[in-house]
Amino acid sequence: MTQPATKVVIVTEEVILKGIVNIIENAGVHGYTVLAARGKGSHNMRSGGEPSVSGNFTNVQIEAIVSDRETGERIVDEVANKYFKNYAGIVYLTEVEVLRSEKFKPG
Amino acid sequence: MTQPATKVVIVTEEVILKGIVNIIENAGVHGYTVLAARGKGSHNMRSGGEPSVSGNFTNVQIEAIVSDRETGERIVDEVANKYFKNYAGIVYLTEVEVLRSEKFKPG
Amino acid sequence: MTQPATKVVIVTEEVILKGIVNIIENAGVHGYTVLAARGKGSHNMRSGGEPSVSGNFTNVQIEAIVSDRETGERIVDEVANKYFKNYAGIVYLTEVEVLRSEKFKPG
Repeated sequence: MTQPATKVVIVTEEVILKGIVNIIENAGVHGYTVLAARGKGSHNMRSGGEPSVSGNFTNVQIEAIVSDRETGERIVDEVANKYFKNYAGIVYLTEVEVLRSEKFKPG
Repeated sequence: MTQPATKVVIVTEEVILKGIVNIIENAGVHGYTVLAARGKGSHNMRSGGEPSVSGNFTNVQIEAIVSDRETGERIVDEVANKYFKNYAGIVYLTEVEVLRSEKFKPG
Repeated sequence: MTQPATKVVIVTEEVILKGIVNIIENAGVHGYTVLAARGKGSHNMRSGGEPSVSGNFTNVQIEAIVSDRETGERIVDEVANKYFKNYAGIVYLTEVEVLRSEKFKPG
């Protein structure tokens, strides 16, 4: 009852969330999930602005299930090329098995 | 020191969290994690009620580690059958390696 | 454009977050993400203190991408050995493909 799909995960600064969502939707993927995240270090080092008192800050972890690996790679490449010279982030892909359903199929 | 296990991920509307937890626990799985999520599109399109001002809304991402794939498939099938005619959501499985431990074994 | 890496996930009580971050950083991994989590059951049974009214409580889900499996196993072993006699938690590893980048390489 499941079919292979690719999960795209992008952890980055909240200020570029809207731009990343545009990239995801332009790739034909119409569903995504946003989780609030904190982080530190090479994953999430803030590229500018005032450091917060705690040394942590608000990031977002954006997750999308896409039906094929190529779509996932296109999204992460475009996110990295457009944003990761000026904003910190990490992007990765992982294989999942999604419940097969016409209504809830991955993008 | 690790053993294979299956991670079940359910992203859906918070209003049905309690029912989903019941399904997980009835499958003999006594541990789960709930993450607050926002989302949009086919993953999380709200099926009813007032849209929020921002176009986003509160979802939940429920994660459980189960010791065998069959248990994971049973949970996602039951969640989809019971809720996904009336509520939006996406469910998927992924393989993980969990630290072997009698005390912290997966459900 | 991607390379294999290991994702380490630790779900546990927020009170030991700082100690876990120290273990991660001492393993040479300088990036991690922290997600706020709720949970119940064997994954997250609170080991002490006042139970909350709702039966849920604040946990954290700490995620780090590491470049090799051995580093991931060392982190989870040390976390479990140091903390999981006194604090509840679950730790697991999963394989991912991270965008290859000198700037954003995994720890």
